[in-house]
Amino acid sequence: MTLQQTMLSAIETELKNQIARVDVSYTQEFHEMLTYHMGWAGEGAGSNATGKRIRPLVTLLSVASINDENRIDKENKEADWLHAVTAASAIELIHNFSLVHDDIQDNSELRRGRKTVWTKWGKPMAINAGDALFVIAYQSILDLSKHYPSDMVVQASQILSEVCLKLTQGQYLDMAYENRHDLQIEDYWHVIGGKTASLLSACTQIGSLLGYAKPEVVEAYRLFGYHLGLAFQVQDDVLGIWGDEAITGKSTASDLVEGKNSLPVLFALEKNGEFAKRWKNSPIKPEEVTEIANLLDKEGAKEYAETISAQETQKAMSYAEQAQPDGEAGQILLKLANALLKRNQ
Amino acid sequence: MTLQQTMLSAIETELKNQIARVDVSYTQEFHEMLTYHMGWAGEGAGSNATGKRIRPLVTLLSVASINDENRIDKENKEADWLHAVTAASAIELIHNFSLVHDDIQDNSELRRGRKTVWTKWGKPMAINAGDALFVIAYQSILDLSKHYPSDMVVQASQILSEVCLKLTQGQYLDMAYENRHDLQIEDYWHVIGGKTASLLSACTQIGSLLGYAKPEVVEAYRLFGYHLGLAFQVQDDVLGIWGDEAITGKSTASDLVEGKNSLPVLFALEKNGEFAKRWKNSPIKPEEVTEIANLLDKEGAKEYAETISAQETQKAMSYAEQAQPDGEAGQILLKLANALLKRNQ
Repeated sequence: MTLQQTMLSAIETELKNQIARVDVSYTQEFHEMLTYHMGWAGEGAGSNATGKRIRPLVTLLSVASINDENRIDKENKEADWLHAVTAASAIELIHNFSLVHDDIQDNSELRRGRKTVWTKWGKPMAINAGDALFVIAYQSILDLSKHYPSDMVVQASQILSEVCLKLTQGQYLDMAYENRHDLQIEDYWHVIGGKTASLLSACTQIGSLLGYAKPEVVEAYRLFGYHLGLAFQVQDDVLGIWGDEAITGKSTASDLVEGKNSLPVLFALEKNGEFAKRWKNSPIKPEEVTEIANLLDKEGAKEYAETISAQETQKAMSYAEQAQPDGEAGQILLKLANALLKRNQ
Repeated sequence: MTLQQTMLSAIETELKNQIARVDVSYTQEFHEMLTYHMGWAGEGAGSNATGKRIRPLVTLLSVASINDENRIDKENKEADWLHAVTAASAIELIHNFSLVHDDIQDNSELRRGRKTVWTKWGKPMAINAGDALFVIAYQSILDLSKHYPSDMVVQASQILSEVCLKLTQGQYLDMAYENRHDLQIEDYWHVIGGKTASLLSACTQIGSLLGYAKPEVVEAYRLFGYHLGLAFQVQDDVLGIWGDEAITGKSTASDLVEGKNSLPVLFALEKNGEFAKRWKNSPIKPEEVTEIANLLDKEGAKEYAETISAQETQKAMSYAEQAQPDGEAGQILLKLANALLKRNQ
């Protein structure tokens, strides 16, 4: 197995161990809700259902990529990445808690082609299943105490908590901004800062901390993850309007049909031209998608978003240079970051 | 101010400080949801809306009641209870997170005579508000690191997490058991063990830990809180059927009308007599409440539940004797326990 495969396998094993906390005789069905959501059980279980586990992988790659010069010299410890696997699983559990609750909030019946937890078990049960994933995430990160000094366990838990609070703030804004036409670009950054970038920054921040990196190196890792998250999200916004799937018009895959307050849309709303008039008038229909996407492009929204994405990518890469991820893990981490930013779909 | 008033005031101040984490310009309404739920703002705000803050009070009384003989002699520390106030507020925040989500799950429009969070802001927003209280609870307990060694912070956080997981398991069972007529008394203990007793046991366990009690004393405090919680819940079940409010028949306050699987009901179902036949047949109407309550009494359900409640009270008090709560705080703690168990309403 490659290092990446070994890490992914360790992550999956740890996630299963953590979730087995509710695998007791009287809460079998409750356990089933969680294993179903995680993609291990029920209809459609398998690698398509689990997701890519990008966040925990980035966490472990961060642990394993701290170069000798950048490690705290007090004890000159080298971290065994496997010791940090409970932090990686904690982040993945937080991500999944937020997906379970998101699906209820958005009334989404499907995720990755499978029924969502609430579709199968109802909303009250799904709220509770999400809550359980949240608690288990904390149990998982506190399990770091088996291999790390308590000071570091507390610090990692505090970072995770700050990020979770930002998640709830981003989620609040995302819901509050629905159907509003008076948003500004500044509002956009609060939402995606909270919802996308914070959790990715927690991966690189907690990972490098657990790799015994010096504080200034931890900060560089954090900012690398944060700007990577922003660049990724802006690019996702571009693809959501001009990507292959969005533009065919066959589906409702376009963010325009969903009425999403993405960056290109907010740019054009601030410009207050032809697009803004059309957008404020009524929801976009699937058959209009190509025309409206072209209009947005003409008004400079695509170029603007691509410029911003390139700037954020640039920032991410400059922090990566400061962080100096090293060795095989460092190479994989940079390759993964590039792959995230250069994807076509 | 009495010690109890001083503690309650410190708890309220700390809760406000913790929740102020979302008091930022762009999430004002989000902050408002939380301060409304906590009883500080909006219609009907005030002491009737906040609840009694029993759990954080029990926590601080536990911290302050460890007698000299029972303290770990390694450093012979005496805890300043104010240093533990962030743990007390964490427990109250967990309790309130569960109330916000409970109200959504039960579709309850009112709590303490006021509109619930979801009634005011909708279910998606209320799910997220509950999630925020949950995160802030963890931030609050991790704040112990300002005054306590990290080992103790990790331990307290682990206790809180275990209890939270039991809360979600109890909540799962409570929902799964609705409308089921084949439950046994054993099933009952899993629900109330998870939903009521665990959180109260966390108060006395975490409190005594933070009072630098020896491990065996912490265990006695834990069991004191646990059995106090069980006794309280069983007594609540008795009052829910035979209490003044339940028996008047004027309201739907009776647990019989709600179809609640309380201990007296489960006892009578296992007995499988006249009550069981009636119960399984159709929901109880408000006008039948007195008659059915009498029937249950005749079949021995009231006596049974009262015996169990007395046994649990006995257990709680015997653990209290082992725990030896001391000083003014110890006296208040025991008085509070007695008041909880001898209330008439």
